[in-house]
Amino acid sequence: MKITAVDPIYVKMPEVNTAADGTQDSFLCRVRTDEGLEGWGESDASPLVCAAAYCCPMSHGNIINIRESLLGETLDGPEDVYRLHAKATRLGMDIQQIHHAYSAADIALWDLVGKKLKQPVYTLLDGASAKSFPKRPYASVLFGDTPELTRKLAEKLRGEGFTAAKFGWGPMGKVSRENDIALVREARAGLGPEAALLIDAGVVWGHDWETAHQRAADFAPFKPGWLEEPLLGDAIGDYRKLVTRKPAVPIAAGEGSGRYHDAEDMLLNGGVNFIQIDVGRIGGITPAHRVRKLAEAHNVTYVNHTFKSHVSIAASIHVFASVESFKLLEYVQGGSPMSQTIVADPLLRGPDGLVRAPEKPGLGITMNLDAVRKYLAPVRIDIGGQSVLVPASV
Amino acid sequence: MKITAVDPIYVKMPEVNTAADGTQDSFLCRVRTDEGLEGWGESDASPLVCAAAYCCPMSHGNIINIRESLLGETLDGPEDVYRLHAKATRLGMDIQQIHHAYSAADIALWDLVGKKLKQPVYTLLDGASAKSFPKRPYASVLFGDTPELTRKLAEKLRGEGFTAAKFGWGPMGKVSRENDIALVREARAGLGPEAALLIDAGVVWGHDWETAHQRAADFAPFKPGWLEEPLLGDAIGDYRKLVTRKPAVPIAAGEGSGRYHDAEDMLLNGGVNFIQIDVGRIGGITPAHRVRKLAEAHNVTYVNHTFKSHVSIAASIHVFASVESFKLLEYVQGGSPMSQTIVADPLLRGPDGLVRAPEKPGLGITMNLDAVRKYLAPVRIDIGGQSVLVPASV
Repeated sequence: MKITAVDPIYVKMPEVNTAADGTQDSFLCRVRTDEGLEGWGESDASPLVCAAAYCCPMSHGNIINIRESLLGETLDGPEDVYRLHAKATRLGMDIQQIHHAYSAADIALWDLVGKKLKQPVYTLLDGASAKSFPKRPYASVLFGDTPELTRKLAEKLRGEGFTAAKFGWGPMGKVSRENDIALVREARAGLGPEAALLIDAGVVWGHDWETAHQRAADFAPFKPGWLEEPLLGDAIGDYRKLVTRKPAVPIAAGEGSGRYHDAEDMLLNGGVNFIQIDVGRIGGITPAHRVRKLAEAHNVTYVNHTFKSHVSIAASIHVFASVESFKLLEYVQGGSPMSQTIVADPLLRGPDGLVRAPEKPGLGITMNLDAVRKYLAPVRIDIGGQSVLVPASV
Repeated sequence: MKITAVDPIYVKMPEVNTAADGTQDSFLCRVRTDEGLEGWGESDASPLVCAAAYCCPMSHGNIINIRESLLGETLDGPEDVYRLHAKATRLGMDIQQIHHAYSAADIALWDLVGKKLKQPVYTLLDGASAKSFPKRPYASVLFGDTPELTRKLAEKLRGEGFTAAKFGWGPMGKVSRENDIALVREARAGLGPEAALLIDAGVVWGHDWETAHQRAADFAPFKPGWLEEPLLGDAIGDYRKLVTRKPAVPIAAGEGSGRYHDAEDMLLNGGVNFIQIDVGRIGGITPAHRVRKLAEAHNVTYVNHTFKSHVSIAASIHVFASVESFKLLEYVQGGSPMSQTIVADPLLRGPDGLVRAPEKPGLGITMNLDAVRKYLAPVRIDIGGQSVLVPASV
C-alpha cells in the first residue's frame, strides 16, 4: 500500500502546570494509506516542536521534514518500516528533534503494517512463533508533596491492587537528606513490605554521583528495586563512577535517550542495571527493539519508560512482550483525563493483576476520536504568508 | 541589565536545493535589553524547528521554551551567560532540539555581554590577558560533480590565495573507489603540492569503518591533513575501531555534536584526532568552549565546523582564538548571497592570508539589516487560533 497522509496532531489539557507529569499534553501522528487503513502513534515530546519537524521547509539535503520523507512511500511489511526509519532519520539528520518527532510516525507505521498483515506488532518484531508474556505493571506516580502524602498515595495504590509502584520527582532531593529518606520510608510503609518499590530521583543530583551513592545506601533498608535517574541523562561518566562504587540499590536510567546510540552509551559506558527506554523519544518501536536486543546481549534488564497515554503503553509492551525475563511494565496511574480517554480500549490489568500485549492487529488499540477532538489544539504554521501546516481534521 | 526581547528570525534564499550547502538558509536570534543594547546569534539547524523551541507551550516542568527562560532575566556578565545556559537547557531538558535552538541565543548573550563590558568575547572566555592568535582559514567547499570540476575549483581557490582547502560531500563515496581517489587526486593537483588539503567524506560510509580505513590508505599518497566524517556522527564504536587500526590519514569528526556530551563521547570514546565543533549546534559558545578545554586536556586538536554566515564564523573564532596550537579555521568560501551579505563587516583574510578574532566588543560584527530584511521568511504560529509566534520586525 501507499502512504497518502501523515498528520501531526497536538492534544492538551486546558491547563498545564510545571509538575513532572507528562500526561498533560501529547503529540500524536496519524498515518493513512490508499487501502483505507490508518495507524496512530505518540511521542513523549514537545508537540509543537515535533509538529515543526513534520513540515519544516528543506534547508539542504540533511534537513528534510518527516512528511516529505513518508508521503507516497510504499508500506507493505516490516522491512518497509525499517527502511523508512532509516530514510527519515537520514534525510532529517541535522534536525536534532528528529527522533522525538519521528517516534509517533514509526509507531503509526508498525500499527499500520500489523493491521494490513493482521498480526500484533510483537509478532512482526519477533516472529510469528513469538510468545507473549504478561508484564507486572508498576503504578508510576509522582511523590506526594510530603512524606505523609506519599504514604497516603502508596496506600491508595495498594488498595487498587498494585503490587509494584514507582514514586518520582516532586520533593525528592530538594529539601534535605532526612526528607528524602522519609519519602522512601513512607512510600514503603504505605505499599506494605511485599510490594516492589521503585524510586525515581528525577535527575535531581545532576553530576553529583557521590550524593547519589549516599542516598542509595540511605534508601537500601526500605528495599527499593532500583534507584532511577539519580543523575542527568547525559552524565554517562558519572553513572559509570556511581556503578563502579557498587551502590546499595541497583541503578536504572535511559529514558532521556533520544537516539539509539544514547541508550547504547548509557548501557555500555554508563553501566546501569536497568535500561529504561521511551518508545516515544528514541524514534519509535524500531530503535527501542534494537535496544532491547542489546540489553539481552549484555544481561541488562530492559524496561519501558512511559508517561503518556495507552497509545504509548501499547507501543511499549509490544517491544518486549516476547522476553519472559523482562517482567516489569511502567504503567501510568492517575494521568490526566485526556491521557485516560483518548484510547477507547486501554490496556487494563487482568484478573491476575498483569498486563498483556493486545493480540489484535497492529498496536491492538482503538482511538477515541471524540476525546481526541475534545482536547485538540489545532496548529497552523505560516511562513511568508504561506501555510506549511494546517490543522488536520480528526 | 534586563533581557526585554528574544526574537527568533528565519532567513532564506528564494530557492533551496538538496546540496549539502548550509548557507541556503539560517536561524538567527536577536536579544535586546533595557539598556538599548542588542546581540545576535546564529544556529546551524532547521530554522522552523528552532523557532518552535522559542515559543512552544509548556508541556510540564521539563518542556519550557527558550523565550520563557530568558525574558526578564538579568544579564550583566559572563556568569549570567553560564547561568542562563544551565537554566534554559534544564527547563528545556525534554525538548530534543534545545541545543540546536539555544545556540543562537547563547551566542547573542555573549555578544551582548561583550558590548556591555566593552570586551571581545574571547577575553570574556579566557581572561583579560588572553592573547588572540590568527588562524589559517581553510576554504570549505563541496566537491565538484566530477574529478575534473574538482580540479578547476581547487585551482580557483588557489588563485584566490587560499593555502588550505577542504572538499566535501558531493560524489564522494557514491560512484566508485576509483572515482573517490580521482576526486582527491585532482583536488591535490589543483591546489598544488604545498597547500593543506582536507577531505570531508560527509558520513557516506555510515558504519563501515573498514571501507573508511581503505580510503584513508587510498588517499594518503595525496597527503590530506585529515579524513573527515567517514562515518555517521553517532557511530562512536565504529570510529573507535577505525582509529584503533591506525588509518593512514588522521581522522576528524564531531560536527554533529548537539550536546557537550556528544563531543565528549566522540573525543574520549571515538578517539578522533581532530574534534570539530559547530557553535551553532552544540548549544552555543558556552559548551563549545568547554569542548575546547577538553580537547586541550587530551591533546586533541579543536577546529570549528562552520557552514553558515559570518555571525557563526565570528562566534567560532572567539572560542579558540587564545590557543596558539589550534591553527585552522573552517571558512565558508562561496556561500549563498544571503550568507555573504547579512553581516556588514565580515571577517576577511588579512594581507598575510590569516583571519583574526575581531577586537571590537562582543562578537565584533555588525548586522546588515537591509540584507536580513531582504531574505526574511516571517514565521507565524497559531495554536487554537491564538498566536504563539508572530514575525519579529527587523
